[in-house]
Amino acid sequence: MLYELLNKHNAEFFLQYASGKDANFYYSTSFKIPDPALYIIGNDGTDLLVVPEMEKDRAEKESKVKEIASLTDLGYYENLKELKDSKEALALTFVNLLKGHKAKKILIPPNFPSFLSFYFKDHFEVEVVDNPFSKLRMIKRRDEVEKIKDVSNAIIRSFEYFLKILKKFKRCEDLRNEVELFLFKDGYLAEDTIVSSGKLSANPHSIGFGEIEDHVVFDVFPKSRSHGYYSDFTRTVIVNENREIGEMLDAVIEAQEKAISLIMDGVLAKEVHNAVCDVLESKGYHTIRKKFKEGLIHSTGHGVGLEVHEEPRIFENDEILKAGMIITVEPGLYYKKIGGVRVEDTVVVRKNGCEVLTPYPKKIEFFD
Amino acid sequence: MLYELLNKHNAEFFLQYASGKDANFYYSTSFKIPDPALYIIGNDGTDLLVVPEMEKDRAEKESKVKEIASLTDLGYYENLKELKDSKEALALTFVNLLKGHKAKKILIPPNFPSFLSFYFKDHFEVEVVDNPFSKLRMIKRRDEVEKIKDVSNAIIRSFEYFLKILKKFKRCEDLRNEVELFLFKDGYLAEDTIVSSGKLSANPHSIGFGEIEDHVVFDVFPKSRSHGYYSDFTRTVIVNENREIGEMLDAVIEAQEKAISLIMDGVLAKEVHNAVCDVLESKGYHTIRKKFKEGLIHSTGHGVGLEVHEEPRIFENDEILKAGMIITVEPGLYYKKIGGVRVEDTVVVRKNGCEVLTPYPKKIEFFD
Repeated sequence: MLYELLNKHNAEFFLQYASGKDANFYYSTSFKIPDPALYIIGNDGTDLLVVPEMEKDRAEKESKVKEIASLTDLGYYENLKELKDSKEALALTFVNLLKGHKAKKILIPPNFPSFLSFYFKDHFEVEVVDNPFSKLRMIKRRDEVEKIKDVSNAIIRSFEYFLKILKKFKRCEDLRNEVELFLFKDGYLAEDTIVSSGKLSANPHSIGFGEIEDHVVFDVFPKSRSHGYYSDFTRTVIVNENREIGEMLDAVIEAQEKAISLIMDGVLAKEVHNAVCDVLESKGYHTIRKKFKEGLIHSTGHGVGLEVHEEPRIFENDEILKAGMIITVEPGLYYKKIGGVRVEDTVVVRKNGCEVLTPYPKKIEFFD
Repeated sequence: MLYELLNKHNAEFFLQYASGKDANFYYSTSFKIPDPALYIIGNDGTDLLVVPEMEKDRAEKESKVKEIASLTDLGYYENLKELKDSKEALALTFVNLLKGHKAKKILIPPNFPSFLSFYFKDHFEVEVVDNPFSKLRMIKRRDEVEKIKDVSNAIIRSFEYFLKILKKFKRCEDLRNEVELFLFKDGYLAEDTIVSSGKLSANPHSIGFGEIEDHVVFDVFPKSRSHGYYSDFTRTVIVNENREIGEMLDAVIEAQEKAISLIMDGVLAKEVHNAVCDVLESKGYHTIRKKFKEGLIHSTGHGVGLEVHEEPRIFENDEILKAGMIITVEPGLYYKKIGGVRVEDTVVVRKNGCEVLTPYPKKIEFFD
């Protein structure tokens, strides 16, 4: 696939410069490196990772890249001595390496840092292309599905724990802390878990503060501390009767179930998003489709994997859903004078439908 | 300071495009946003953050930026409809905004993504400059020093706990897990904590696996889960007598104490690094200064703050240490046939010396 991309653009090399925290870099190299490194794939068979000398042994053992070179091997320190600027010295080291490989045109991904790409432009033709590994990562291998299932199961355990302690801890902060600790002990890292109540929940990205009021939005997206994959899940729990919130939740559940019923190989992302908007609008709610700033104000979902937000988006786009994609389905409704509700599951797209990885009842009322 | 930079380069705007996880972006905006946003500072007084509509309210409340605009306000969705490509639509939205401000030349930091900078180049003069906030962040304000002290104190508590359980848990994995859980409960997130033993410890970046042998290198660098600042600390514990390791540890302690004795306002980074190399070489060990690939194979230290590795580097560079900088001092020695040792403290540079934030005895023998 990468050779096709190079041929299509008449280029010889595709470069990534990132740390192991970059999902595409990690996916393509299998190497967890704390600081950025250069990964080069070439149509001459080049498959080369350039790391600091100190990381060379580990890269040879742990990464799946064919060839490892260190900055020392490539003369970086001589360049540094001459140029006295670490970024320029790095850029020159890479330029010399690429010239040695007779590069004329190179491709870089969108997030490639400008300090290198601007320098490269003086020596080669440089073109920004979508990172081909973002596309590859959309379709999960079987072992990736298993990893995301593993996190999804942990999420359900953490939500059951949340429900158990909901009456004991009355503040959003304390509940968040308890749930994140529960997950950490279980082997998962959750940060910025949303435990949001009352009118504050009308902001879908507020993590929530203060006492639990009429209802609480619980949105957790942990990653495994061992394999690094994410999953994503939201439930809205009604704690004290609130007619408007109850009706909004019913509408959102209906929209979410409609969306899930549509998802299968071959369906367009926008068909799913439009179905969500249709249900919500039919009940008199506002949606982003009609440019409203209250109601449904975000997309229906997104891919989940090594990143909590990755491709594809489930919005107004023409992306075709394919078997093996793992996506969230998370309609919500948000009104400043009332508050917000959201229901979210992570699902695997299958040939004739989809498999919900986070099955749990959706209407949860928890009255005293 | 930023206006000076703009004037010096004859430019009107400095742009950052990053998420709240980017230390410079967070430092300059005080805004924790999960996805990237554009932050523009202009010599016409512009101080503008561009976020998705959904984040606008929160940005107005939580960020310290003067003016907030949403992508919707700026016509992003119309551009998307026309161009059908989210990255191009974003780039065009930003170009139109900058043209509205009569931009001719803009400055961007080294990590600015190429998909935007290449597009900007067709409309403006674009120059990559060191991020001025990286420089600003080097000197810590008093509240930042307090935050790093807070993490340093947690580190010492976690190390005391580590020593307490060292005999009970015999495997590196289990010890790492216990310490990370201890820190998490205490309010700190430690990842990739190094608990490394035997010959594996000859690789300074291996996190360590298997049974504790003769000695163990404990290197932890947690961040506060509330305020986000880091600290960094390493001790080498001798568990069973090993003459070579014991001698290496003595040399490293001497080198580290020499370095600490030199650190004060006005000293050059390379003077500190060279002093470390001098001590180690005087005892017959190899150093990176003489291009050896065993012995001391990394720099003497680095800045610590919102990032665990930030400016300044303490290496062969001419950086002048200044009061208020917080840096690590972490010489080590690594030999494949023997193993590795390292001793590290985090210190604040003061006018006439430095303050060690992680005080703890350095020679720790823990024989049965």
